[in-house]
Amino acid sequence: MPPHETPDTNDAKQPVDLIIFAAHIIPVVPRDVVLSDHAIVVANSRIVALLPHDEAVQLYVATEERHLRDHIVLPGLVNLHTHSAMTLLRGLSDDKPLCDWLTQDIWPTEGKFVGPDFVRDGMTHAVAEMIRGGTTCCNEMYFFADEICGVLERTGMRGTVGQVVMEFPGPYGSGPDDYLAKAKPNLEKYAPGNHDLVTAAMAPHAPYTVSDKSLQRAEELAKEHKARFHIHLHETEGECCDSENLNRSSMSCHLSDQKLRPLANLKRLGLLSERLVCAHMTQLTDEEIDEVAKAGAHVAHCPSSNLKLASGIAPVTEMIKRGVNVGIGTDGAASNNSLDMFAEMKLAAILAKAQTLVSSSVPAGEALQMATLNGARALGLEKDIGSIEVGKRADVIAVECDSIEMLPMYNAVSHVVYVAGREHVSDVWINGKHLLANHQLTTIDEDQVKKDVRGWAARICAHHKELQQKTEP
Amino acid sequence: MPPHETPDTNDAKQPVDLIIFAAHIIPVVPRDVVLSDHAIVVANSRIVALLPHDEAVQLYVATEERHLRDHIVLPGLVNLHTHSAMTLLRGLSDDKPLCDWLTQDIWPTEGKFVGPDFVRDGMTHAVAEMIRGGTTCCNEMYFFADEICGVLERTGMRGTVGQVVMEFPGPYGSGPDDYLAKAKPNLEKYAPGNHDLVTAAMAPHAPYTVSDKSLQRAEELAKEHKARFHIHLHETEGECCDSENLNRSSMSCHLSDQKLRPLANLKRLGLLSERLVCAHMTQLTDEEIDEVAKAGAHVAHCPSSNLKLASGIAPVTEMIKRGVNVGIGTDGAASNNSLDMFAEMKLAAILAKAQTLVSSSVPAGEALQMATLNGARALGLEKDIGSIEVGKRADVIAVECDSIEMLPMYNAVSHVVYVAGREHVSDVWINGKHLLANHQLTTIDEDQVKKDVRGWAARICAHHKELQQKTEP
Repeated sequence: MPPHETPDTNDAKQPVDLIIFAAHIIPVVPRDVVLSDHAIVVANSRIVALLPHDEAVQLYVATEERHLRDHIVLPGLVNLHTHSAMTLLRGLSDDKPLCDWLTQDIWPTEGKFVGPDFVRDGMTHAVAEMIRGGTTCCNEMYFFADEICGVLERTGMRGTVGQVVMEFPGPYGSGPDDYLAKAKPNLEKYAPGNHDLVTAAMAPHAPYTVSDKSLQRAEELAKEHKARFHIHLHETEGECCDSENLNRSSMSCHLSDQKLRPLANLKRLGLLSERLVCAHMTQLTDEEIDEVAKAGAHVAHCPSSNLKLASGIAPVTEMIKRGVNVGIGTDGAASNNSLDMFAEMKLAAILAKAQTLVSSSVPAGEALQMATLNGARALGLEKDIGSIEVGKRADVIAVECDSIEMLPMYNAVSHVVYVAGREHVSDVWINGKHLLANHQLTTIDEDQVKKDVRGWAARICAHHKELQQKTEP
Repeated sequence: MPPHETPDTNDAKQPVDLIIFAAHIIPVVPRDVVLSDHAIVVANSRIVALLPHDEAVQLYVATEERHLRDHIVLPGLVNLHTHSAMTLLRGLSDDKPLCDWLTQDIWPTEGKFVGPDFVRDGMTHAVAEMIRGGTTCCNEMYFFADEICGVLERTGMRGTVGQVVMEFPGPYGSGPDDYLAKAKPNLEKYAPGNHDLVTAAMAPHAPYTVSDKSLQRAEELAKEHKARFHIHLHETEGECCDSENLNRSSMSCHLSDQKLRPLANLKRLGLLSERLVCAHMTQLTDEEIDEVAKAGAHVAHCPSSNLKLASGIAPVTEMIKRGVNVGIGTDGAASNNSLDMFAEMKLAAILAKAQTLVSSSVPAGEALQMATLNGARALGLEKDIGSIEVGKRADVIAVECDSIEMLPMYNAVSHVVYVAGREHVSDVWINGKHLLANHQLTTIDEDQVKKDVRGWAARICAHHKELQQKTEP
């Protein structure tokens, strides 16, 4: 029988862009499921089928195939709170409290160096780090949003880009009017659903740096564009107590005239909604957790940053129990000191156990869901990303399992959370595009990034030495 | 002038085995110092000089040179508490409390599989993982000590090998008499100072698995041979409360007839000494910390294991403040789930800050000292290892700094603790022997290890499935 008459010729098969054949697939939905010897079929940037290897071979013919025989394939990780460009300040200042860290080191350095070039180079550096480490979507809060959006578009990275608002002048604007004005074009250009990769959000920095009036104006803009409202909230005990006592001598005190904890004040201002993404939330009463749940607001849990800055430990188990959607973020590399979502996922899982003294708190499957689907939900992107399901975007990563460090494997879900490091990520696809192929970035020139970063570091170092000499007697 | 008459010919230079030229060296002593463009000169397994590059070139000629232009070189890490062979059970059981984890999963599996072959293969696997990750010395507590010692000798890894004692029969012995009898030959063969790599110790498992009498007999042996006494102690609140209340229905209750917390009972038995190494110690009053300090005993802090098993958080800052020598351990890979001392070092540093709500608690330099010199002190090896000083053994590791994830670098000490992952370790020397050369193991056949590990995993998996089928209705 000539080849074209065989029942399984390619002619009879549906043409697609990509088939990923994997030893193990964790779709995240349904939770804790591991599919063995399954394939993910991708066409036009979306997942069109998830099925056993042999069925995929029978039904589809792909332009590109990838065979991952020793790998776990899972949804890309969603970094729910970060300031990516701050990778350029990684390790500049450590072992200090949040206030001193900000006022003595971070803000003065930002004041001197932050501009479009800094943000573009830092953001590119951060995207390289995130893709290499299996993060496929980031929720950004940083200056010069245009540059951030540009880097996302150029590199093929997915992100929600918060338009920063602060009460004071900074490198990016002269004050709230200016910040708010600068936010509008991106809110329109990158309104939810408008762009394949980028979504704009409002990102007023924190209650202690933004006035009630500016918070409300930011929310008006956000509401109008159906955009997320991303803010640092209840990060430290000081922020909550100083606001409640209206202790204006503290820089942690909110800028409101109300003697209220910041969450209560946001509620008073009508800012609690399902579009609210609160970063940190280490200080919460049970009643406050119920308020967050009732509003359908979301929490970005940043365990490394919260530990390192001595901010506290967010009550994650209680939040989950009371119905709050909790995702995971790395915070910026200046406080973490890395953008490693695998490390955050493990820490979120094990820290919850010590906090509750219950070793089944935040089990592996829960931690993985937090780092994927919950992050997607928080950004309003759960119909597009966060799990490997037919119809969703093909944001997919592969973890190599054949190294000394990854052997043996008994359970793929616990392995991804408790054993894998980001260095085991071999392949990353976003929108079905192969952005990391066998550990190699395809859209970013790594050598150029390193050269640019070294240049910034040299200038920042020289400036710091100068400052120190000036302050020495 | 002919070459042999130049003042800097090789004839005039002292011949040595190895010179490591490094961009940055952290000697650990003195603390927080970073030497730029220095060299470590090694002869007969020991460091004979630590000096600037150009001076090293003028004074020495080496059989082997290594130029580490983008690296931080530091002392090898000391893993102060582990059960290495349990890497074969990595991820077998997760998200369970210590008691269930031990009695439902770990002990039954060990009972079925642990023997000389299991320990030899698991230990070889673990040594491969540890060397690849920059650990150059491990403090072991596991069965079949002869096999452990054999692996250390064959691979060139340094270790203190605890001779396990339990009150009950197990895969390694019929009871305390048998365990104690088996301990003697190694205590003699590997008495402190007898061997280049291996030192024997006594390792009675825990107060809840070893009787007062057996603890005392173990201590007699340890004292006679000037050996360390390594024990799990105050790991959980249950252990302390159930012992104090003599709640015999709990498996955490010590086997003594005294209504005492385990540390107080060890004191009563005369077991507190400078040879005592206590693993975990999550539950300690200030008075107990003072007792430990007064005795000159040591603590192995295992933060990942303590969090993951919901045991609690050891009061590290208070221990350090009150003069206790605290090192860092990974515990076994069945509870961690890896032997990653870089991850433990970072977690020890950041967890202490959240525990004390002081962000200068356990600063980077302190954490690095805990993972190196303090571990060496705890094992009585501080004259030989734990820092890069003339006269000490050349146990040295190199961390690559030129990756996307490691750039930029402002402070080498904070970089090693807060940024570096074990995957950045490129080179490892123990006793001046190059055991990891540009990420490649030189004394272990990686492919053979992986093959062996896969074989064990298949057998263990099959057994588990069988057990689960039996227990299902």
